Amino acid sequence: MIARPTFQDVEQAANRIARYVHRTPIITSAYLDAATGSSVFLKAENLQKVGAFKARGATNAVLSLSGGDATRGVVTDSSGNHGQAVAYACSIAGIAATVVMPDHAPGVKVDAVKGYGAKVVFCAQSERAATVEELVGQNGYTLVHAFDDPLVIAGQATATLELLSQVDDLDVIIAPIGGGGLLSGASIVASQSGVEVIGAEPSLVDDAYRSLRDGVRHGPTGEISVGDGLLTGIGELPFEILHAAQRSVLTVSDDDILSAMRIIAQRIKLVVEPSGAAGVAVLLKYASEFKGRRVGVILSGGNVDLARFAT
Amino acid sequence: MIARPTFQDVEQAANRIARYVHRTPIITSAYLDAATGSSVFLKAENLQKVGAFKARGATNAVLSLSGGDATRGVVTDSSGNHGQAVAYACSIAGIAATVVMPDHAPGVKVDAVKGYGAKVVFCAQSERAATVEELVGQNGYTLVHAFDDPLVIAGQATATLELLSQVDDLDVIIAPIGGGGLLSGASIVASQSGVEVIGAEPSLVDDAYRSLRDGVRHGPTGEISVGDGLLTGIGELPFEILHAAQRSVLTVSDDDILSAMRIIAQRIKLVVEPSGAAGVAVLLKYASEFKGRRVGVILSGGNVDLARFAT
Repeated sequence: MIARPTFQDVEQAANRIARYVHRTPIITSAYLDAATGSSVFLKAENLQKVGAFKARGATNAVLSLSGGDATRGVVTDSSGNHGQAVAYACSIAGIAATVVMPDHAPGVKVDAVKGYGAKVVFCAQSERAATVEELVGQNGYTLVHAFDDPLVIAGQATATLELLSQVDDLDVIIAPIGGGGLLSGASIVASQSGVEVIGAEPSLVDDAYRSLRDGVRHGPTGEISVGDGLLTGIGELPFEILHAAQRSVLTVSDDDILSAMRIIAQRIKLVVEPSGAAGVAVLLKYASEFKGRRVGVILSGGNVDLARFAT
Repeated sequence: MIARPTFQDVEQAANRIARYVHRTPIITSAYLDAATGSSVFLKAENLQKVGAFKARGATNAVLSLSGGDATRGVVTDSSGNHGQAVAYACSIAGIAATVVMPDHAPGVKVDAVKGYGAKVVFCAQSERAATVEELVGQNGYTLVHAFDDPLVIAGQATATLELLSQVDDLDVIIAPIGGGGLLSGASIVASQSGVEVIGAEPSLVDDAYRSLRDGVRHGPTGEISVGDGLLTGIGELPFEILHAAQRSVLTVSDDDILSAMRIIAQRIKLVVEPSGAAGVAVLLKYASEFKGRRVGVILSGGNVDLARFAT
């Protein structure tokens, strides 16, 4: 069993990565406030390095590597943004990175990983873990897991640490959940101040919703959603953290997500990928539950092919 | 001859409008820095109220109206964003607004104006001034001109005032020019600190470029560019201000502008309209002239149909 990261780990992570990641702005929108009846504060992690919050966790993990591990290099398994983030973190640290990606990964994400100088190994969705294991065994690489890693979770949590320093008196934070690194990190930070935390998940891949509802970790549904960053099942460590804090998840359809993505582009002028729009989709769908409250929503990433915006 | 606004007018405008406009963030981009060899600071006025810097000038002008003028209401002539800005400013001040718009105005801009409760009057491009004059004569409306108005220019100038307070030691500021309100405002502010100011204009509608080159105000070319916010000719007052300060303009093709717009969306995750991307287009095209310098670029607006992003 892996040790859960603490609030102090998050503060250390914030110091460690400060030079290498953006302090992303908070964006407000009169349109969204009017549409939901709440006061909405968007944490624009689409404007983060590599276009997603994932830069935070990967940078924290990579910068924590010891000399020998750093020399041998790093491997990770990622549907996209985490791969990009590991590639970015390794490029600033001068460490060799290998990224295992599924065959259906968007081209824009593959190109970005290669752009940071990382090596990409493609495989079928079902063979990802095995491929990583093989690379670790053969080359002595250190695995920087996308979410089942306390250093990665502590890094992702810095997005919420910043959000709470930028906006006073938040009542609730909504963040997307795939593996659960972002949401469990949010939960650790929010627990300090009693802020509620809610996950946003595509209905088609609702294992985190069902896991936290049932108190048992369910496997992934195996379906595909437009939220390509959220296909993975909830991780062991994120599940433990979120279950212990009694957090829950709300689900949205793929149409809800695409509609939210287009509203964010048209009205708020931000390019957000489908996964990154899941929080706003939840806010719009369940607006009555958030009415009159101060709601922070993490826009987790912006790596999307622009063709998605043609209606 | 209208009095030129002073730096003190700009400071007063900043105080007057502070409650009603966003202090927009500065966005940096490793991609843009690498592509240009300069340090680039983007002033994200696409994230401004109404999706454009125009909210600043219109709010300053409308909030400066005296009681009788405020009661009779306001009219303006606008290809889009200024109309939206006047409609917004009037909606916060409880003043009736009428916006004259050309027949080719994008639907998204027309809807937004109506959304703020303003009345829209359509006419042919060539009849805009006459239509406004008629409405002023018939109803006693006050004209809030899009750029030939010292209060409007002082308001637009607050974007540059903020930019200079957010970024130290800028060498040069690039901003789009249509009528010239934004650029002349930038010039007034930049003159205080010796910062260079350069206009960005579509080649197809290069009257400002030629006017400042020749020292004589030329009329509009009559061509249409994708930069629909920049079709209008340089105004009398902006020309005076920019000519006196010896400012100049660099021109870019429509392809340069659309390419910059897509780069900003794909790489920097911001939705910017074609006019709003003109500054980045200039920076990319004339990169060698900005090499090694600290460059502020005003992304002037984000009101664009998303279909534009389908390649």
